[in-house]
Amino acid sequence: MPAISTRGQQMPPSPIRKLVPFAEAAKKKGIKVYHLNIGQPDIETPAAILDAVKKANIPVLEYSHSAGNESYRRKLVDYYATAGISLSQKDIMITAGGSEAIQFGFFACLNPGDEVIVPEPFYANYNGFACAAGVKIVPITSSIENGFALPPIESFEKVLTAKSKAILICNPNNPTGYLYSKQEMEALGELCKKHDLYLFSDEAYREFSYTGSAMSALSLKGLDKQVVMMDTISKRYSACGARIGAFVTRNKEVYNTAMKFAQARLSPPGLAQILGEAAVDLPANFFDGPKAEYQARRDLLVTRLNQMPGVFCPNPGGAFYAIARLPIDDSDKFCQWLLESFSFNGQTLMLAPATGFYGTAGLGKQEVRLAYVLNLASIAAAMDCLASALQEYPGRTH
Amino acid sequence: MPAISTRGQQMPPSPIRKLVPFAEAAKKKGIKVYHLNIGQPDIETPAAILDAVKKANIPVLEYSHSAGNESYRRKLVDYYATAGISLSQKDIMITAGGSEAIQFGFFACLNPGDEVIVPEPFYANYNGFACAAGVKIVPITSSIENGFALPPIESFEKVLTAKSKAILICNPNNPTGYLYSKQEMEALGELCKKHDLYLFSDEAYREFSYTGSAMSALSLKGLDKQVVMMDTISKRYSACGARIGAFVTRNKEVYNTAMKFAQARLSPPGLAQILGEAAVDLPANFFDGPKAEYQARRDLLVTRLNQMPGVFCPNPGGAFYAIARLPIDDSDKFCQWLLESFSFNGQTLMLAPATGFYGTAGLGKQEVRLAYVLNLASIAAAMDCLASALQEYPGRTH
Repeated sequence: MPAISTRGQQMPPSPIRKLVPFAEAAKKKGIKVYHLNIGQPDIETPAAILDAVKKANIPVLEYSHSAGNESYRRKLVDYYATAGISLSQKDIMITAGGSEAIQFGFFACLNPGDEVIVPEPFYANYNGFACAAGVKIVPITSSIENGFALPPIESFEKVLTAKSKAILICNPNNPTGYLYSKQEMEALGELCKKHDLYLFSDEAYREFSYTGSAMSALSLKGLDKQVVMMDTISKRYSACGARIGAFVTRNKEVYNTAMKFAQARLSPPGLAQILGEAAVDLPANFFDGPKAEYQARRDLLVTRLNQMPGVFCPNPGGAFYAIARLPIDDSDKFCQWLLESFSFNGQTLMLAPATGFYGTAGLGKQEVRLAYVLNLASIAAAMDCLASALQEYPGRTH
Repeated sequence: MPAISTRGQQMPPSPIRKLVPFAEAAKKKGIKVYHLNIGQPDIETPAAILDAVKKANIPVLEYSHSAGNESYRRKLVDYYATAGISLSQKDIMITAGGSEAIQFGFFACLNPGDEVIVPEPFYANYNGFACAAGVKIVPITSSIENGFALPPIESFEKVLTAKSKAILICNPNNPTGYLYSKQEMEALGELCKKHDLYLFSDEAYREFSYTGSAMSALSLKGLDKQVVMMDTISKRYSACGARIGAFVTRNKEVYNTAMKFAQARLSPPGLAQILGEAAVDLPANFFDGPKAEYQARRDLLVTRLNQMPGVFCPNPGGAFYAIARLPIDDSDKFCQWLLESFSFNGQTLMLAPATGFYGTAGLGKQEVRLAYVLNLASIAAAMDCLASALQEYPGRTH
């Protein structure tokens, strides 16, 4: 047979999904599995935005503009204005999820062999997009000890090479939940300006910040040429399946280049654009409910984790993830063991080993990511399971 | 500012869309423009498939499986069975339109620098996907004289190099409307087997064939390792805006590799998968109506074109496109002139210069592509405009 491509062979499988067969096997044995492994919110998609699709009169479901419907882009100008971000509809391109926005950024701005500096742990799919684009991710390690704050700027400067082309951050962060401060954002901005780097900013979790609000990279002064913001409605409105995101930049050349990639794929999903547009019209206090719910979950999760002997979990400022350090030998083994060999009152939990979120080999072996996308009762039950599991796990280290 | 990527600079803008500003200017002047330039069908999207979305009960619009909903893939097994193609749901991956299916094929199977042989004229966006993947398209010229039949196999063999990795066809063809015969398909299959090449087959227009039925590449015997079929519901059900397609192969290694790219982008559009699934349940005779309509349009269009002095248009066997040779100096100039400087009873027409569909520079200068996606009355009126325009055009050659 003809050979598979080299990039296809190098393409990493999803580290989150590789445990799925073990979860399925556990369920077949009748064990209830609490899914804290994946960022799929349980919160209902607002009926009003689904109703907008249901009520739409669509004689022909036509291609939209390659940048998305202009009416939707104009609405998004209003949405971003409420977040203090001033944009024109010509700065906004609607994409198939945040995923496609990241791809457009990589393809439009980076050559094969170019380097993107990313604080680790980071969203694992960045590896996949980098592999597709032939781009190298250069990780800068952040530390659980200070809650995964931005590593010192000097550690970025130390890894700069002639191939360095961009810094990529996620704020609030997936997988750490860390919320970058204004000072950290400004320091990153200065660094990008000084070394003529792009600043790619994944702001999927903007609305979920619990200790102040997330500063958008688009709010940094004098960085219009540098900043490319990647956004998505997936988490914001519990609409992950819609596949609607946005590629946002005030750099016209970058926008026009990304537009050529957008034109090749014709247009973003049409039905879901109606849903996205309707979401902008949700009441101003819409996020209060989900935010309070996530915050209560975070508080319960983090409190319970830190009560377990040998466990440390910093309190995340945003998103709906936490990374905890556990007294275990190997998080991959532990997460598999939870599904394969453990149960507590007929229940267990599924976690994401943090190893998949580090670019540096060997890191994350004592850490797991927990997504608090289940209700309080389920989180409590999952924590009961974890506490029991840590007592029983043969690879416990202390 | 940081530099744009080289591939971003090389990325071709859409040749179909570059005339759009001229069309907009014509409309502002009050001129009615008949759009024969783009494959956006005017036929209504079946209400039943839009209703399926409207009736769906969706508490949380979740990520689907990265390969698409299993229920939809199982339905597609039934759909392909009616076309005589035997598949398992594990051979099928739902994609964001045919566009994403083509991208998955390029990324999973081809290395940067690899060559894909494509009969020209070809669908212009193949250039964009090739550019993104760093792949080189090697065109083999087909001829308007024999209706754009498959060029002789020897002409493929002549361009084979160590970098040749795949042949890409579109059947029935966009932009020519040519329907490949069983003999041509088998000859291509033998060529791919002999030289261990992938056979990428874009079958977006399968249901629209007027002189016999289109043979799927998946029906070729002994080629399971070679064939990757790219499909879409866009044209089939007048649902271009849905962005639902399929990547289909019986080659497990190719499938599993493409799956890693699918996992990185999480899942295909969710609402539109419901629509796609419902489409499989449309009555068996559903295509009779649209097919008869397109055939009547083709007959009118081709007859009218061939009645014009100096015009030649072969009769296409499928899809809803035709390429005509006109007595003009330059199709790009002519198409722009139609919008900028011409009108007939306050009307004009928009065509796609065929130059954008050729990989070989200089070809297609006397040819235009016409998409018969307007009703008979509009096609008749557009042909009146064209006949008049050809008399008036200053660059007329004979």
